[in-house]
Amino acid sequence: MDNPAPSRLPEPPAGGIVLAVVGLGLIGGSMAIDLKRRGYARQVIGVDRDRLHAATALRIGLVDDLAELDEAMARADVILLAVPVNVTISLLPTVLDRIGEHQVVTDVASTKQTLVETVRHHPHRRRFVTSHPMAGTEFSGPWAALSGLFDSKAAIICDRDDSAPDAVGSIERLYAALNMRMVHMEAERHDMHVAYVSHISHVISFALAITVLDKEKDEKAIFDLASGGFSSTARLAKSSADMWTPIFQQNSENVVNVLDAYIRKLEEFRRHIAEKAEKPLHDLISDANRIRRVLNG
Amino acid sequence: MDNPAPSRLPEPPAGGIVLAVVGLGLIGGSMAIDLKRRGYARQVIGVDRDRLHAATALRIGLVDDLAELDEAMARADVILLAVPVNVTISLLPTVLDRIGEHQVVTDVASTKQTLVETVRHHPHRRRFVTSHPMAGTEFSGPWAALSGLFDSKAAIICDRDDSAPDAVGSIERLYAALNMRMVHMEAERHDMHVAYVSHISHVISFALAITVLDKEKDEKAIFDLASGGFSSTARLAKSSADMWTPIFQQNSENVVNVLDAYIRKLEEFRRHIAEKAEKPLHDLISDANRIRRVLNG
Repeated sequence: MDNPAPSRLPEPPAGGIVLAVVGLGLIGGSMAIDLKRRGYARQVIGVDRDRLHAATALRIGLVDDLAELDEAMARADVILLAVPVNVTISLLPTVLDRIGEHQVVTDVASTKQTLVETVRHHPHRRRFVTSHPMAGTEFSGPWAALSGLFDSKAAIICDRDDSAPDAVGSIERLYAALNMRMVHMEAERHDMHVAYVSHISHVISFALAITVLDKEKDEKAIFDLASGGFSSTARLAKSSADMWTPIFQQNSENVVNVLDAYIRKLEEFRRHIAEKAEKPLHDLISDANRIRRVLNG
Repeated sequence: MDNPAPSRLPEPPAGGIVLAVVGLGLIGGSMAIDLKRRGYARQVIGVDRDRLHAATALRIGLVDDLAELDEAMARADVILLAVPVNVTISLLPTVLDRIGEHQVVTDVASTKQTLVETVRHHPHRRRFVTSHPMAGTEFSGPWAALSGLFDSKAAIICDRDDSAPDAVGSIERLYAALNMRMVHMEAERHDMHVAYVSHISHVISFALAITVLDKEKDEKAIFDLASGGFSSTARLAKSSADMWTPIFQQNSENVVNVLDAYIRKLEEFRRHIAEKAEKPLHDLISDANRIRRVLNG
Protein backbone atom coordinates (compact mmCIF):
# COMPACT_ATOMS: atom_id res chain seq x y z
CA MET A 1 0.00 0.00 0.00
CA ASP A 2 1.20 3.41 -0.93
CA ASN A 3 0.67 6.24 1.54
CA PRO A 4 2.64 9.26 0.35
CA ALA A 5 2.70 12.57 2.14
CA PRO A 6 -0.60 14.32 1.42
CA SER A 7 -0.64 16.31 -1.82
CA ARG A 8 -0.72 20.04 -1.43
CA LEU A 9 -4.40 20.76 -1.82
CA PRO A 10 -5.53 23.57 -4.14
CA GLU A 11 -7.48 26.32 -2.48
CA PRO A 12 -11.23 25.71 -2.52
CA PRO A 13 -13.32 28.12 -4.62
CA ALA A 14 -14.69 30.90 -2.46
CA GLY A 15 -18.11 29.89 -1.21
CA GLY A 16 -17.76 26.26 -2.21
CA ILE A 17 -18.48 24.32 -5.36
CA VAL A 18 -21.68 23.04 -6.97
CA LEU A 19 -21.95 19.31 -6.32
CA ALA A 20 -24.13 16.83 -8.18
CA VAL A 21 -24.88 13.65 -6.24
CA VAL A 22 -26.14 10.82 -8.43
CA GLY A 23 -27.78 8.22 -6.20
CA LEU A 24 -29.43 9.51 -3.03
CA GLY A 25 -29.03 6.50 -0.76
CA LEU A 26 -27.07 5.91 2.44
CA ILE A 27 -23.68 6.90 0.99
CA GLY A 28 -24.67 9.66 -1.41
CA GLY A 29 -27.07 11.16 1.10
CA SER A 30 -24.59 11.06 3.99
CA MET A 31 -21.87 12.67 1.87
CA ALA A 32 -24.30 15.35 0.68
CA ILE A 33 -25.19 16.35 4.25
CA ASP A 34 -21.65 16.94 5.47
CA LEU A 35 -20.23 18.36 2.23
CA LYS A 36 -22.85 21.09 2.33
CA ARG A 37 -22.74 21.63 6.08
CA ARG A 38 -18.95 21.91 6.12
CA GLY A 39 -18.72 24.33 3.20
CA TYR A 40 -17.20 22.09 0.53
CA ALA A 41 -20.34 22.56 -1.55
CA ARG A 42 -22.38 25.75 -1.77
CA GLN A 43 -25.13 23.87 -3.57
CA VAL A 44 -26.01 20.17 -3.83
CA ILE A 45 -28.07 18.92 -6.78
CA GLY A 46 -29.59 15.48 -6.35
CA VAL A 47 -30.16 12.98 -9.16
CA ASP A 48 -32.07 9.75 -8.62
CA ARG A 49 -34.22 7.73 -11.01
CA ASP A 50 -36.21 6.47 -8.05
CA ARG A 51 -38.84 9.22 -7.66
CA LEU A 52 -39.57 8.34 -4.03
CA HIS A 53 -35.88 8.48 -3.09
CA ALA A 54 -35.42 11.76 -4.93
CA ALA A 55 -38.48 13.41 -3.37
CA THR A 56 -37.48 12.14 0.07
CA ALA A 57 -33.92 13.46 -0.26
CA LEU A 58 -35.26 16.91 -1.10
CA ARG A 59 -37.88 16.87 1.63
CA ILE A 60 -35.50 15.81 4.42
CA GLY A 61 -32.87 18.29 3.28
CA LEU A 62 -30.12 16.05 1.90
CA VAL A 63 -30.05 18.13 -1.31
CA ASP A 64 -30.96 21.67 -2.31
CA ASP A 65 -32.48 20.80 -5.67
CA LEU A 66 -33.37 17.87 -7.91
CA ALA A 67 -32.49 17.51 -11.60
CA GLU A 68 -32.06 15.03 -14.40
CA LEU A 69 -28.48 13.90 -14.97
CA ASP A 70 -28.01 16.11 -18.05
CA GLU A 71 -29.08 19.26 -16.27
CA ALA A 72 -27.10 18.40 -13.13
CA MET A 73 -23.97 17.87 -15.25
CA ALA A 74 -24.49 21.23 -16.92
CA ARG A 75 -24.53 22.97 -13.53
CA ALA A 76 -22.06 21.03 -11.35
CA ASP A 77 -18.33 21.41 -10.72
CA VAL A 78 -18.02 17.94 -9.21
CA ILE A 79 -20.19 14.92 -10.04
CA LEU A 80 -20.37 12.20 -7.41
CA LEU A 81 -21.68 8.80 -8.52
CA ALA A 82 -23.10 6.99 -5.47
CA VAL A 83 -24.98 4.14 -7.15
CA PRO A 84 -24.37 0.36 -7.08
CA VAL A 85 -21.18 -0.66 -8.89
CA ASN A 86 -22.96 -2.17 -11.91
CA VAL A 87 -24.85 1.09 -12.44
CA THR A 88 -21.62 3.05 -11.99
CA ILE A 89 -20.00 0.97 -14.72
CA SER A 90 -22.85 1.57 -17.14
CA LEU A 91 -23.19 5.27 -16.28
CA LEU A 92 -19.57 6.41 -16.16
CA PRO A 93 -18.73 6.33 -19.91
CA THR A 94 -21.78 8.52 -20.66
CA VAL A 95 -20.81 10.96 -17.92
CA LEU A 96 -17.23 11.13 -19.24
CA ASP A 97 -18.52 11.69 -22.80
CA ARG A 98 -20.17 14.90 -21.64
CA ILE A 99 -17.72 16.14 -19.04
CA GLY A 100 -16.16 19.59 -19.36
CA GLU A 101 -12.46 20.25 -18.98
CA HIS A 102 -12.91 21.86 -15.55
CA GLN A 103 -15.36 19.31 -14.20
CA VAL A 104 -14.47 16.26 -12.14
CA VAL A 105 -16.34 12.99 -11.65
CA THR A 106 -15.74 10.53 -8.82
CA ASP A 107 -17.47 7.35 -7.66
CA VAL A 108 -17.71 5.45 -4.39
CA ALA A 109 -17.96 1.88 -5.67
CA SER A 110 -16.64 -1.02 -3.59
CA THR A 111 -14.85 -2.73 -6.50
CA LYS A 112 -12.56 -0.98 -8.93
CA GLN A 113 -10.86 -3.22 -11.48
CA THR A 114 -13.69 -3.59 -14.00
CA LEU A 115 -14.65 0.03 -13.53
CA VAL A 116 -11.20 1.41 -14.38
CA GLU A 117 -10.86 -1.05 -17.28
CA THR A 118 -14.16 0.22 -18.70
CA VAL A 119 -12.86 3.79 -19.11
CA ARG A 120 -9.12 3.15 -19.46
CA HIS A 121 -9.00 4.54 -23.01
CA HIS A 122 -11.69 7.16 -22.68
CA PRO A 123 -10.39 10.54 -23.95
CA HIS A 124 -11.63 12.23 -20.75
CA ARG A 125 -10.30 9.56 -18.38
CA ARG A 126 -8.19 12.13 -16.52
CA ARG A 127 -11.30 14.02 -15.33
CA PHE A 128 -12.29 10.85 -13.39
CA VAL A 129 -10.94 10.05 -9.92
CA THR A 130 -12.03 6.69 -8.56
CA SER A 131 -12.47 6.56 -4.79
CA HIS A 132 -13.91 4.41 -2.03
CA PRO A 133 -14.85 5.86 1.35
CA MET A 134 -14.60 2.92 3.78
CA ALA A 135 -17.71 3.51 5.84
CA GLY A 136 -21.33 2.52 5.83
CA THR A 137 -24.07 0.90 7.81
CA GLU A 138 -26.34 -2.05 7.09
CA PHE A 139 -29.20 0.33 6.21
CA SER A 140 -30.02 1.85 2.85
CA GLY A 141 -31.99 4.60 1.13
CA PRO A 142 -32.09 8.37 1.83
CA TRP A 143 -33.71 7.70 5.23
CA ALA A 144 -30.48 5.97 6.31
CA ALA A 145 -28.25 8.98 5.54
CA LEU A 146 -26.54 10.54 8.53
CA SER A 147 -24.02 13.21 9.37
CA GLY A 148 -20.61 12.11 10.61
CA LEU A 149 -20.71 8.68 8.94
CA PHE A 150 -17.26 9.13 7.41
CA ASP A 151 -15.43 10.94 10.22
CA SER A 152 -11.98 9.43 10.90
CA LYS A 153 -12.42 6.52 8.48
CA ALA A 154 -10.17 5.75 5.48
CA ALA A 155 -10.90 7.04 1.96
CA ILE A 156 -9.12 5.09 -0.76
CA ILE A 157 -8.17 6.79 -4.00
CA CYS A 158 -7.13 4.31 -6.69
CA ASP A 159 -4.80 4.76 -9.68
CA ARG A 160 -4.23 8.41 -8.91
CA ASP A 161 -1.70 8.81 -11.72
CA ASP A 162 -4.42 8.14 -14.28
CA SER A 163 -6.26 11.30 -13.17
CA ALA A 164 -5.38 14.96 -13.69
CA PRO A 165 -3.68 16.51 -10.61
CA ASP A 166 -6.33 19.22 -10.25
CA ALA A 167 -9.05 16.54 -10.37
CA VAL A 168 -7.28 14.52 -7.65
CA GLY A 169 -6.90 17.70 -5.58
CA SER A 170 -10.60 18.40 -5.82
CA ILE A 171 -11.54 14.91 -4.62
CA GLU A 172 -8.94 14.94 -1.86
CA ARG A 173 -10.47 18.18 -0.67
CA LEU A 174 -13.88 16.50 -0.74
CA TYR A 175 -12.67 13.69 1.54
CA ALA A 176 -10.77 16.09 3.76
CA ALA A 177 -14.09 17.90 4.34
CA LEU A 178 -15.49 14.53 5.45
CA ASN A 179 -12.60 14.20 7.96
CA MET A 180 -11.31 11.12 6.18
CA ARG A 181 -7.77 9.78 6.10
CA MET A 182 -6.51 9.41 2.50
CA VAL A 183 -5.05 6.10 1.34
CA HIS A 184 -3.69 5.60 -2.18
CA MET A 185 -3.72 2.19 -3.83
CA GLU A 186 -3.87 0.47 -7.21
CA ALA A 187 -7.30 -0.80 -8.26
CA GLU A 188 -6.15 -4.41 -8.33
CA ARG A 189 -4.81 -4.35 -4.77
CA HIS A 190 -7.86 -2.42 -3.60
CA ASP A 191 -10.16 -5.20 -4.78
CA MET A 192 -8.08 -7.89 -3.04
CA HIS A 193 -7.92 -5.91 0.22
CA VAL A 194 -11.62 -5.17 0.41
CA ALA A 195 -12.41 -8.84 -0.24
CA TYR A 196 -10.64 -9.54 3.08
CA VAL A 197 -11.79 -6.65 5.23
CA SER A 198 -15.30 -6.11 3.95
CA HIS A 199 -16.75 -8.50 1.35
CA ILE A 200 -16.02 -11.73 3.27
CA SER A 201 -17.73 -10.33 6.38
CA HIS A 202 -20.88 -9.81 4.35
CA VAL A 203 -20.89 -13.34 2.90
CA ILE A 204 -20.36 -14.73 6.41
CA SER A 205 -23.22 -12.72 7.79
CA PHE A 206 -25.67 -13.48 4.96
CA ALA A 207 -24.97 -17.23 5.30
CA LEU A 208 -25.36 -17.12 9.10
CA ALA A 209 -28.70 -15.33 8.86
CA ILE A 210 -30.09 -17.91 6.43
CA THR A 211 -28.79 -20.85 8.49
CA VAL A 212 -30.46 -19.63 11.66
CA LEU A 213 -33.65 -18.43 9.93
CA ASP A 214 -34.01 -21.85 8.31
CA LYS A 215 -33.74 -23.49 11.72
CA GLU A 216 -36.33 -21.10 13.06
CA LYS A 217 -38.96 -22.73 10.82
CA ASP A 218 -38.95 -25.59 13.34
CA GLU A 219 -37.94 -23.65 16.42
CA LYS A 220 -40.18 -20.62 16.57
CA ALA A 221 -38.68 -18.98 19.60
CA ILE A 222 -35.03 -19.36 18.75
CA PHE A 223 -34.45 -15.61 18.37
CA ASP A 224 -35.90 -15.01 21.80
CA LEU A 225 -32.49 -16.12 23.06
CA ALA A 226 -30.28 -14.28 20.60
CA SER A 227 -28.00 -11.94 22.52
CA GLY A 228 -25.40 -9.39 21.54
CA GLY A 229 -23.01 -11.91 20.01
CA PHE A 230 -25.46 -13.10 17.40
CA SER A 231 -26.65 -9.57 16.65
CA SER A 232 -23.18 -8.30 15.89
CA THR A 233 -22.30 -11.27 13.66
CA ALA A 234 -25.61 -11.19 11.78
CA ARG A 235 -26.01 -7.41 11.56
CA LEU A 236 -24.52 -7.10 8.07
CA ALA A 237 -27.10 -9.57 6.76
CA LYS A 238 -29.52 -6.64 6.59
CA SER A 239 -27.43 -5.13 3.79
CA SER A 240 -28.99 -4.34 0.44
CA ALA A 241 -29.18 -7.08 -2.21
CA ASP A 242 -29.11 -4.45 -4.97
CA MET A 243 -25.78 -3.16 -3.71
CA TRP A 244 -24.11 -6.45 -2.81
CA THR A 245 -25.04 -8.67 -5.76
CA PRO A 246 -22.95 -6.63 -8.25
CA ILE A 247 -20.08 -6.34 -5.74
CA PHE A 248 -19.85 -10.14 -5.50
CA GLN A 249 -20.09 -10.41 -9.30
CA GLN A 250 -17.40 -7.78 -9.88
CA ASN A 251 -15.01 -9.10 -7.25
CA SER A 252 -15.75 -12.76 -7.85
CA GLU A 253 -12.18 -14.11 -8.02
CA ASN A 254 -10.96 -12.34 -4.88
CA VAL A 255 -14.04 -13.19 -2.83
CA VAL A 256 -13.87 -16.85 -3.88
CA ASN A 257 -10.20 -16.99 -2.85
CA VAL A 258 -10.92 -15.57 0.59
CA LEU A 259 -13.98 -17.82 0.98
CA ASP A 260 -11.87 -20.88 0.19
CA ALA A 261 -9.31 -19.95 2.85
CA TYR A 262 -12.13 -19.21 5.28
CA ILE A 263 -13.98 -22.48 4.67
CA ARG A 264 -10.71 -24.40 5.19
CA LYS A 265 -10.30 -22.68 8.56
CA LEU A 266 -13.91 -23.48 9.51
CA GLU A 267 -13.32 -27.12 8.62
CA GLU A 268 -10.29 -27.15 10.89
CA PHE A 269 -12.51 -25.89 13.71
CA ARG A 270 -15.16 -28.46 12.80
CA ARG A 271 -12.67 -31.34 12.97
CA HIS A 272 -11.31 -30.33 16.38
CA ILE A 273 -14.79 -29.66 17.77
CA ALA A 274 -16.02 -33.07 16.54
CA GLU A 275 -13.00 -34.68 18.25
CA LYS A 276 -13.46 -32.50 21.37
CA ALA A 277 -9.72 -31.85 21.05
CA GLU A 278 -8.86 -29.47 23.88
CA LYS A 279 -5.35 -28.32 22.99
CA PRO A 280 -5.91 -27.73 19.25
CA LEU A 281 -9.12 -25.80 20.01
CA HIS A 282 -7.44 -23.71 22.69
CA ASP A 283 -4.56 -22.98 20.28
CA LEU A 284 -6.90 -21.95 17.45
CA ILE A 285 -8.90 -19.62 19.68
CA SER A 286 -5.73 -18.09 21.13
CA ASP A 287 -4.55 -17.56 17.57
CA ALA A 288 -7.82 -15.75 16.78
CA ASN A 289 -7.40 -13.64 19.94
CA ARG A 290 -4.54 -11.80 18.20
CA ILE A 291 -7.36 -9.74 16.67
CA ARG A 292 -7.39 -7.86 20.00
CA ARG A 293 -4.36 -5.87 18.91
CA VAL A 294 -6.17 -4.82 15.73
CA LEU A 295 -9.73 -4.03 16.76
CA ASN A 296 -10.45 -1.08 18.96
CA GLY A 297 -12.40 -1.29 22.17
CA MET B 1 -39.88 -23.69 24.37
CA ASP B 2 -41.88 -23.43 27.51
CA ASN B 3 -42.71 -19.97 28.82
CA PRO B 4 -45.23 -20.33 31.61
CA ALA B 5 -46.63 -17.44 33.56
CA PRO B 6 -43.97 -16.34 36.05
CA SER B 7 -43.99 -18.29 39.34
CA ARG B 8 -45.13 -16.39 42.36
CA LEU B 9 -41.83 -15.34 43.88
CA PRO B 10 -41.25 -15.86 47.61
CA GLU B 11 -40.60 -12.71 49.57
CA PRO B 12 -36.90 -11.84 49.80
CA PRO B 13 -35.31 -12.05 53.25
CA ALA B 14 -35.31 -8.64 54.89
CA GLY B 15 -32.05 -6.91 54.07
CA GLY B 16 -31.06 -9.38 51.36
CA ILE B 17 -29.20 -12.66 51.36
CA VAL B 18 -25.52 -13.56 51.63
CA LEU B 19 -24.23 -14.44 48.16
CA ALA B 20 -21.07 -16.38 47.35
CA VAL B 21 -19.75 -15.78 43.84
CA VAL B 22 -17.28 -18.43 42.70
CA GLY B 23 -15.35 -17.06 39.73
CA LEU B 24 -14.82 -13.29 39.63
CA GLY B 25 -14.69 -12.70 35.88
CA LEU B 26 -16.93 -10.80 33.48
CA ILE B 27 -20.12 -12.70 34.36
CA GLY B 28 -19.61 -13.33 38.08
CA GLY B 29 -18.32 -9.80 38.63
CA SER B 30 -21.15 -8.15 36.69
CA MET B 31 -23.78 -10.16 38.56
CA ALA B 32 -22.12 -9.32 41.89
CA ILE B 33 -22.27 -5.57 41.22
CA ASP B 34 -26.00 -5.38 40.47
CA LEU B 35 -27.14 -8.04 42.95
CA LYS B 36 -25.55 -6.01 45.73
CA ARG B 37 -26.55 -2.61 44.41
CA ARG B 38 -30.18 -3.62 43.91
CA GLY B 39 -30.59 -5.22 47.33
CA TYR B 40 -30.81 -8.90 46.39
CA ALA B 41 -27.63 -9.52 48.40
CA ARG B 42 -26.70 -7.79 51.62
CA GLN B 43 -23.20 -9.23 51.38
CA VAL B 44 -21.18 -10.70 48.49
CA ILE B 45 -18.33 -13.10 49.24
CA GLY B 46 -15.91 -13.67 46.37
CA VAL B 47 -14.06 -16.93 45.66
CA ASP B 48 -11.39 -17.17 42.99
CA ARG B 49 -8.31 -19.37 42.80
CA ASP B 50 -6.62 -16.73 40.70
CA ARG B 51 -5.11 -14.45 43.37
CA LEU B 52 -4.84 -11.49 41.04
CA HIS B 53 -8.49 -11.74 40.00
CA ALA B 54 -9.59 -12.14 43.60
CA ALA B 55 -7.55 -9.18 44.86
CA THR B 56 -8.74 -7.05 41.94
CA ALA B 57 -12.39 -7.91 42.55
CA LEU B 58 -12.07 -6.81 46.17
CA ARG B 59 -10.14 -3.66 45.32
CA ILE B 60 -12.55 -2.44 42.64
CA GLY B 61 -15.56 -3.23 44.81
CA LEU B 62 -17.16 -6.19 43.03
CA VAL B 63 -17.27 -8.11 46.32
CA ASP B 64 -17.34 -7.26 50.01
CA ASP B 65 -15.01 -10.00 51.15
CA LEU B 66 -12.85 -12.86 49.89
CA ALA B 67 -12.87 -16.43 51.16
CA GLU B 68 -11.95 -19.98 50.28
CA LEU B 69 -14.81 -22.05 48.91
CA ASP B 70 -15.37 -23.94 52.20
CA GLU B 71 -15.69 -20.79 54.24
CA ALA B 72 -17.86 -19.06 51.62
CA MET B 73 -20.20 -22.07 51.62
CA ALA B 74 -20.45 -21.97 55.39
CA ARG B 75 -21.62 -18.34 55.26
CA ALA B 76 -23.71 -18.02 52.07
CA ASP B 77 -27.42 -18.47 51.38
CA VAL B 78 -26.90 -18.71 47.62
CA ILE B 79 -23.78 -19.98 45.85
CA LEU B 80 -23.28 -18.78 42.30
CA LEU B 81 -20.79 -20.71 40.16
CA ALA B 82 -19.48 -18.40 37.42
CA VAL B 83 -16.53 -20.41 36.13
CA PRO B 84 -15.91 -22.09 32.74
CA VAL B 85 -18.23 -25.06 32.12
CA ASN B 86 -15.52 -27.70 32.59
CA VAL B 87 -14.68 -26.23 36.02
CA THR B 88 -18.40 -26.05 36.86
CA ILE B 89 -18.73 -29.76 36.08
CA SER B 90 -15.80 -30.71 38.30
CA LEU B 91 -16.80 -28.36 41.12
CA LEU B 92 -20.55 -28.91 41.35
CA PRO B 93 -20.59 -32.43 42.93
CA THR B 94 -18.30 -31.22 45.73
CA VAL B 95 -20.48 -28.19 46.34
CA LEU B 96 -23.62 -30.36 46.45
CA ASP B 97 -21.92 -32.76 48.87
CA ARG B 98 -21.60 -29.94 51.40
CA ILE B 99 -24.76 -27.96 50.73
CA GLY B 100 -27.22 -27.31 53.55
CA GLU B 101 -30.95 -27.86 53.22
CA HIS B 102 -31.71 -24.13 53.02
CA GLN B 103 -28.88 -23.25 50.68
CA VAL B 104 -29.14 -23.01 46.90
CA VAL B 105 -26.47 -23.34 44.23
CA THR B 106 -26.80 -22.11 40.65
CA ASP B 107 -24.42 -21.88 37.72
CA VAL B 108 -24.22 -19.77 34.56
CA ALA B 109 -22.63 -22.25 32.16
CA SER B 110 -23.34 -22.05 28.43
CA THR B 111 -23.93 -25.80 28.00
CA LYS B 112 -26.15 -27.89 30.22
CA GLN B 113 -26.55 -31.53 29.21
CA THR B 114 -23.31 -32.97 30.63
CA LEU B 115 -23.64 -30.78 33.70
CA VAL B 116 -27.12 -32.02 34.62
CA GLU B 117 -26.12 -35.63 33.85
CA THR B 118 -23.18 -35.29 36.24
CA VAL B 119 -25.42 -34.59 39.24
CA ARG B 120 -28.63 -36.35 38.15
CA HIS B 121 -28.51 -38.86 41.01
CA HIS B 122 -26.88 -36.65 43.61
CA PRO B 123 -28.91 -36.75 46.87
CA HIS B 124 -28.90 -32.93 47.03
CA ARG B 125 -29.75 -32.40 43.36
CA ARG B 126 -32.87 -30.42 44.27
CA ARG B 127 -30.79 -27.65 45.89
CA PHE B 128 -29.26 -26.98 42.46
CA VAL B 129 -30.92 -24.74 39.84
CA THR B 130 -29.10 -24.60 36.52
CA SER B 131 -29.38 -21.29 34.69
CA HIS B 132 -27.87 -19.35 31.83
CA PRO B 133 -28.10 -15.56 31.62
CA MET B 134 -27.88 -14.76 27.90
CA ALA B 135 -25.57 -11.76 28.03
CA GLY B 136 -21.89 -11.05 27.87
CA THR B 137 -19.19 -9.15 26.06
CA GLU B 138 -16.02 -10.26 24.29
CA PHE B 139 -13.93 -9.17 27.30
CA SER B 140 -12.99 -11.18 30.38
CA GLY B 141 -11.69 -10.93 33.92
CA PRO B 142 -12.91 -8.75 36.83
CA TRP B 143 -11.84 -5.61 34.94
CA ALA B 144 -14.51 -6.38 32.34
CA ALA B 145 -17.39 -6.53 34.86
CA LEU B 146 -20.04 -3.86 34.46
CA SER B 147 -23.37 -2.82 35.86
CA GLY B 148 -26.43 -3.28 33.66
CA LEU B 149 -24.95 -6.08 31.55
CA PHE B 150 -28.01 -8.28 32.00
CA ASP B 151 -30.80 -5.70 31.88
CA SER B 152 -33.68 -6.80 29.61
CA LYS B 153 -31.91 -9.92 28.33
CA ALA B 154 -33.19 -13.51 28.67
CA ALA B 155 -32.26 -15.77 31.59
CA ILE B 156 -32.79 -19.47 30.88
CA ILE B 157 -33.61 -21.86 33.70
CA CYS B 158 -33.28 -25.50 32.68
CA ASP B 159 -35.01 -28.60 34.03
CA ARG B 160 -36.84 -26.63 36.70
CA ASP B 161 -38.78 -29.67 37.89
CA ASP B 162 -35.56 -31.30 39.08
CA SER B 163 -35.05 -28.48 41.60
CA ALA B 164 -36.91 -27.70 44.82
CA PRO B 165 -39.56 -24.96 44.36
CA ASP B 166 -38.01 -22.71 47.01
CA ALA B 167 -34.62 -23.06 45.27
CA VAL B 168 -36.15 -22.10 41.91
CA GLY B 169 -37.87 -19.14 43.57
CA SER B 170 -34.61 -17.92 45.00
CA ILE B 171 -32.86 -18.03 41.62
CA GLU B 172 -35.83 -16.46 39.80
CA ARG B 173 -35.62 -13.63 42.33
CA LEU B 174 -31.93 -13.31 41.57
CA TYR B 175 -32.60 -12.89 37.84
CA ALA B 176 -35.54 -10.59 38.50
CA ALA B 177 -33.13 -8.32 40.39
CA LEU B 178 -30.97 -8.31 37.25
CA ASN B 179 -34.03 -7.19 35.21
CA MET B 180 -33.95 -10.37 33.17
CA ARG B 181 -36.81 -12.10 31.39
CA MET B 182 -37.20 -15.72 32.55
CA VAL B 183 -37.30 -18.52 29.98
CA HIS B 184 -37.74 -22.17 30.96
CA MET B 185 -36.34 -24.97 28.85
CA GLU B 186 -35.03 -28.52 29.00
CA ALA B 187 -31.25 -28.88 29.07
CA GLU B 188 -31.16 -30.75 25.78
CA ARG B 189 -33.10 -28.09 23.87
CA HIS B 190 -31.08 -25.36 25.56
CA ASP B 191 -27.85 -26.79 24.16
CA MET B 192 -29.27 -27.04 20.66
CA HIS B 193 -30.65 -23.49 20.76
CA VAL B 194 -27.46 -21.86 22.00
CA ALA B 195 -25.47 -23.67 19.31
CA TYR B 196 -27.54 -21.65 16.80
CA VAL B 197 -27.78 -18.28 18.48
CA SER B 198 -24.43 -18.06 20.21
CA HIS B 199 -21.85 -20.81 19.68
CA ILE B 200 -21.88 -20.72 15.86
CA SER B 201 -21.31 -16.95 15.90
CA HIS B 202 -18.16 -17.49 17.90
CA VAL B 203 -16.77 -20.17 15.57
CA ILE B 204 -17.49 -17.88 12.60
CA SER B 205 -15.72 -14.98 14.21
CA PHE B 206 -12.66 -16.95 15.38
CA ALA B 207 -12.21 -18.40 11.87
CA LEU B 208 -12.61 -14.98 10.22
CA ALA B 209 -10.01 -13.41 12.51
CA ILE B 210 -7.45 -16.10 11.72
CA THR B 211 -8.12 -15.94 7.97
CA VAL B 212 -7.55 -12.19 7.82
CA LEU B 213 -4.64 -12.20 10.29
CA ASP B 214 -2.91 -14.87 8.19
CA LYS B 215 -3.31 -12.70 5.10
CA GLU B 216 -1.89 -9.77 7.01
CA LYS B 217 1.48 -11.54 7.18
CA ASP B 218 1.88 -10.53 3.52
CA GLU B 219 -0.27 -7.42 3.53
CA LYS B 220 0.85 -5.35 6.47
CA ALA B 221 -1.64 -2.55 6.14
CA ILE B 222 -4.75 -4.61 5.55
CA PHE B 223 -6.39 -3.58 8.83
CA ASP B 224 -5.90 0.06 7.98
CA LEU B 225 -8.97 -0.36 5.79
CA ALA B 226 -11.13 -2.41 8.11
CA SER B 227 -14.33 -0.53 8.80
CA GLY B 228 -17.37 -1.13 10.95
CA GLY B 229 -18.51 -4.21 9.05
CA PHE B 230 -15.36 -6.18 9.74
CA SER B 231 -15.21 -5.02 13.35
CA SER B 232 -18.68 -6.23 14.13
CA THR B 233 -18.16 -9.62 12.49
CA ALA B 234 -14.74 -10.18 14.09
CA ARG B 235 -15.52 -8.71 17.52
CA LEU B 236 -16.33 -12.05 19.16
CA ALA B 237 -12.90 -13.37 18.15
CA LYS B 238 -11.54 -11.57 21.21
CA SER B 239 -13.43 -14.01 23.44
CA SER B 240 -11.58 -16.07 26.02
CA ALA B 241 -10.04 -19.41 24.96
CA ASP B 242 -10.40 -20.74 28.53
CA MET B 243 -14.14 -20.17 28.40
CA TRP B 244 -14.84 -21.27 24.82
CA THR B 245 -12.71 -24.41 24.50
CA PRO B 246 -14.83 -26.36 27.04
CA ILE B 247 -18.07 -25.00 25.53
CA PHE B 248 -17.15 -26.41 22.13
CA GLN B 249 -16.11 -29.71 23.75
CA GLN B 250 -19.32 -29.97 25.77
CA ASN B 251 -21.62 -28.99 22.92
CA SER B 252 -19.68 -30.76 20.21
CA GLU B 253 -22.57 -32.57 18.46
CA ASN B 254 -24.85 -29.54 18.25
CA VAL B 255 -22.11 -27.18 17.13
CA VAL B 256 -20.92 -29.62 14.45
CA ASN B 257 -24.50 -29.93 13.15
CA VAL B 258 -24.91 -26.17 12.85
CA LEU B 259 -21.44 -25.80 11.33
CA ASP B 260 -22.29 -28.36 8.67
CA ALA B 261 -25.47 -26.50 7.72
CA TYR B 262 -23.54 -23.24 7.74
CA ILE B 263 -20.68 -24.51 5.56
CA ARG B 264 -23.23 -25.87 3.05
CA LYS B 265 -24.79 -22.41 2.84
CA LEU B 266 -21.37 -20.79 2.39
CA GLU B 267 -20.59 -23.21 -0.42
CA GLU B 268 -23.86 -22.22 -2.10
CA PHE B 269 -22.72 -18.59 -1.94
CA ARG B 270 -19.28 -19.58 -3.20
CA ARG B 271 -20.72 -21.40 -6.23
CA HIS B 272 -22.94 -18.49 -7.25
CA ILE B 273 -20.19 -15.93 -6.66
CA ALA B 274 -17.75 -17.99 -8.78
CA GLU B 275 -20.38 -18.12 -11.54
CA LYS B 276 -21.23 -14.41 -11.08
CA ALA B 277 -24.84 -15.59 -11.08
CA GLU B 278 -26.93 -12.47 -10.55
CA LYS B 279 -30.38 -13.86 -9.82
CA PRO B 280 -29.32 -16.66 -7.42
CA LEU B 281 -27.10 -14.22 -5.51
CA HIS B 282 -29.83 -11.59 -5.31
CA ASP B 283 -32.26 -14.27 -4.09
CA LEU B 284 -29.86 -15.54 -1.42
CA ILE B 285 -29.16 -12.05 -0.09
CA SER B 286 -32.88 -11.19 -0.08
CA ASP B 287 -33.45 -14.39 1.86
CA ALA B 288 -30.82 -13.31 4.41
CA ASN B 289 -32.48 -9.88 4.63
CA ARG B 290 -35.40 -11.52 6.47
CA ILE B 291 -33.13 -11.11 9.51
CA ARG B 292 -34.32 -7.47 9.55
CA ARG B 293 -37.55 -8.56 11.20
CA VAL B 294 -35.59 -10.28 13.95
CA LEU B 295 -32.71 -7.98 14.83
CA ASN B 296 -33.37 -4.65 16.46
CA GLY B 297 -32.08 -1.38 15.14
